[in-house]
Amino acid sequence: MAADIVIHNGLLLTMAPDLAVIENGAVLIRDSIISKVGKTEAFDLGQANMQIDARGGIIMPGLVNCHTHMPMSMFRGMADDLPLDVWLNERIFPAEAKHINPGSVGKWSLHSCKEMLLAGTTTCCDGYFFEAAAVGAMVESGIRAVAGQGVIDFPAPGVPDPGQNIRAAQEFVNRIKNLSDRITPSIFCHSPYTCSKKTLVAAKQAAEDAGILFQIHVAETKKEAQMIKGLKNRSVISYLADLGLLNEKTLLVHSVWITDADIEIIQKRAARVAHCPESNMKLASGIAPVPRMVDAGIAVGLGTDGCASNNDHDLFSEMDMAAKLHKVACMDPCVMDARTCLKMATIEGARAIGLDRKIGSIERGKKADIIIVDVNKPHMVPMYDPFSSLVYSAKSSDVSWVMVDGIVRVRDGNLV
Amino acid sequence: MAADIVIHNGLLLTMAPDLAVIENGAVLIRDSIISKVGKTEAFDLGQANMQIDARGGIIMPGLVNCHTHMPMSMFRGMADDLPLDVWLNERIFPAEAKHINPGSVGKWSLHSCKEMLLAGTTTCCDGYFFEAAAVGAMVESGIRAVAGQGVIDFPAPGVPDPGQNIRAAQEFVNRIKNLSDRITPSIFCHSPYTCSKKTLVAAKQAAEDAGILFQIHVAETKKEAQMIKGLKNRSVISYLADLGLLNEKTLLVHSVWITDADIEIIQKRAARVAHCPESNMKLASGIAPVPRMVDAGIAVGLGTDGCASNNDHDLFSEMDMAAKLHKVACMDPCVMDARTCLKMATIEGARAIGLDRKIGSIERGKKADIIIVDVNKPHMVPMYDPFSSLVYSAKSSDVSWVMVDGIVRVRDGNLV
Repeated sequence: MAADIVIHNGLLLTMAPDLAVIENGAVLIRDSIISKVGKTEAFDLGQANMQIDARGGIIMPGLVNCHTHMPMSMFRGMADDLPLDVWLNERIFPAEAKHINPGSVGKWSLHSCKEMLLAGTTTCCDGYFFEAAAVGAMVESGIRAVAGQGVIDFPAPGVPDPGQNIRAAQEFVNRIKNLSDRITPSIFCHSPYTCSKKTLVAAKQAAEDAGILFQIHVAETKKEAQMIKGLKNRSVISYLADLGLLNEKTLLVHSVWITDADIEIIQKRAARVAHCPESNMKLASGIAPVPRMVDAGIAVGLGTDGCASNNDHDLFSEMDMAAKLHKVACMDPCVMDARTCLKMATIEGARAIGLDRKIGSIERGKKADIIIVDVNKPHMVPMYDPFSSLVYSAKSSDVSWVMVDGIVRVRDGNLV
Repeated sequence: MAADIVIHNGLLLTMAPDLAVIENGAVLIRDSIISKVGKTEAFDLGQANMQIDARGGIIMPGLVNCHTHMPMSMFRGMADDLPLDVWLNERIFPAEAKHINPGSVGKWSLHSCKEMLLAGTTTCCDGYFFEAAAVGAMVESGIRAVAGQGVIDFPAPGVPDPGQNIRAAQEFVNRIKNLSDRITPSIFCHSPYTCSKKTLVAAKQAAEDAGILFQIHVAETKKEAQMIKGLKNRSVISYLADLGLLNEKTLLVHSVWITDADIEIIQKRAARVAHCPESNMKLASGIAPVPRMVDAGIAVGLGTDGCASNNDHDLFSEMDMAAKLHKVACMDPCVMDARTCLKMATIEGARAIGLDRKIGSIERGKKADIIIVDVNKPHMVPMYDPFSSLVYSAKSSDVSWVMVDGIVRVRDGNLV
């Protein structure tokens, strides 16, 4: 007999294309797959092996964090309120050189996985060095992840010879590609200013050969945009586009210093974007033109970035921050409405990292990555509109149940 | 024998002028007053009637919310993502006209008090209509509050004849001034654009006569600033200053559209400011020049504003938002550092509302308004610096104990 689970008695936000909301909704999960979605009354609860009573809470897809450096939780709060170059060159790089090894990467990645699961994040897209050790933590925790081995033209943790950076990334991909259905390998190129043209092209080619996502930090700071402009006489986006790096399997992380012409290029090449509002604000990098990218139909997901620049892995606060930041930046309270923000944290995030056929919404045939949000708390009452409540009032601590791939990972607010 | 309480075994953030942090610290409370602060080893725990073990958490002053409209929690999430005039004129004002009465004000004020206490806020500065009903809820909940009866030159809930608005405010002040040591009356003038010159002057005079705080929404929107400029040929701040409205007992709420000259006026008159970053962002009002005000030595506190424009009463997210907003707005990651933000939410907030001799820090002789923040959660680990952890990583749900006036109101995360 199949291991059926029914989650019932909740307000079900499908995040399907019609954004259907089902009152007193239920979901049937069979062998990690969503096999039925509807009103609770249409389910025979007694038939299931396990019933999860949402107690009137919100049943919704697990959140998708499109940009993390999981091991960096070890540096959470180590260096704040500093100029960017001091922060990076005098604090973060030396700390990484000293403390990054497979053991610490595994330990702090597991810590980050736990933090994310407790906060309702069921999928993350990560990039770092010794990424195989991070993958070990992902598998242990049960989280779903896209995991990218870092590529940079400097001696890096685990890759002392930059001449071996592409080979190391390829070895990582081959090593983990069949490890777990929940782990998707990726190549994470650090940036256009730390990788040569040759490295950028070779890294993208390696990703294409493997049919996997290519991630890259892009146009994060004004300084970077000016540097590329000076060296290449074009925008960062144009430069990457001209190298043939932009397609639907490219995730452009940050994309702060971009123009309308750049947005058109991104849209035409169908490249994806990870928006990290809290990190961009805390480091004073700038404000990405996200409303215009969303209007152009670009898949934009939300990312927390690493814990040294945020300092947490909390997509609920990221949604709230994104909504409010762009309203004030555009001087328009109508932009980045609650539905747009919730889509960015779920289905659009899944689209950004190439997993939208598998996750990001509660629809028949998709993987059962589902969370329950408790609404029985003063800050969630009254609830006129669940999208508003989730974006503007909910805290990650309101997440009561988390299921990844049909397996319960958080129960009543505690890790299983 | 006195009812002594000792809170011990925590990292004690005094928020005293030297921002002293005491490892393994303890506080002795006698008859609602802090009577001793120091290392746990210097206390005879067995002598106390009650011991509260902070279990390594952070012991700190309760947070001070400098601007609320408590009953508006009834409208939480009712109208979001709308143009300001539609939001106010088509949604909020009609809803207020229909639903505001002493019963609803009392009910939803109590709801807001509970939300605030659970989130570590021990004092709020409120302004609304039927404020006496809000005061009833404040007293019932045990929160400390400055409570202001609204004054506006339109028919208002409970004051159908605007000609009676000053008299109604005075009656409110007389009615509650001796009600409780925890409740301080105030007069809350809505704004320079909804009150005539005559009303503004009379309301401030009534506040001066009673020796109490005068609150007013000021320069919230560009439209307001332009209107006053057109009508009075000067800035909003100049206009109020010329009317004699600015002194150390005046709280200027919002203060978004102000110039350096206005900041100089505010500083010279020693007026106070309530900064509401989330509300200003969500309504796309603008970004107040807070770092410049802080640099000028002006007492600036943080406020959540009402739940129709935020949508919660959470000073932890407000601190985080304030820090990040101003960094990106100034393109400088050094402004609004963690210590500055935590001061705004505690001692500077207390100074803004005139209660800094009573609350806002853990010092001998002050009232025992104290909270404990649990740090034993993944998102709070590691902790290099408690100020950073509180501003950039903590959530209001991490508050485990809340004491107001020496009385425990939240215990292990639940209302007593």
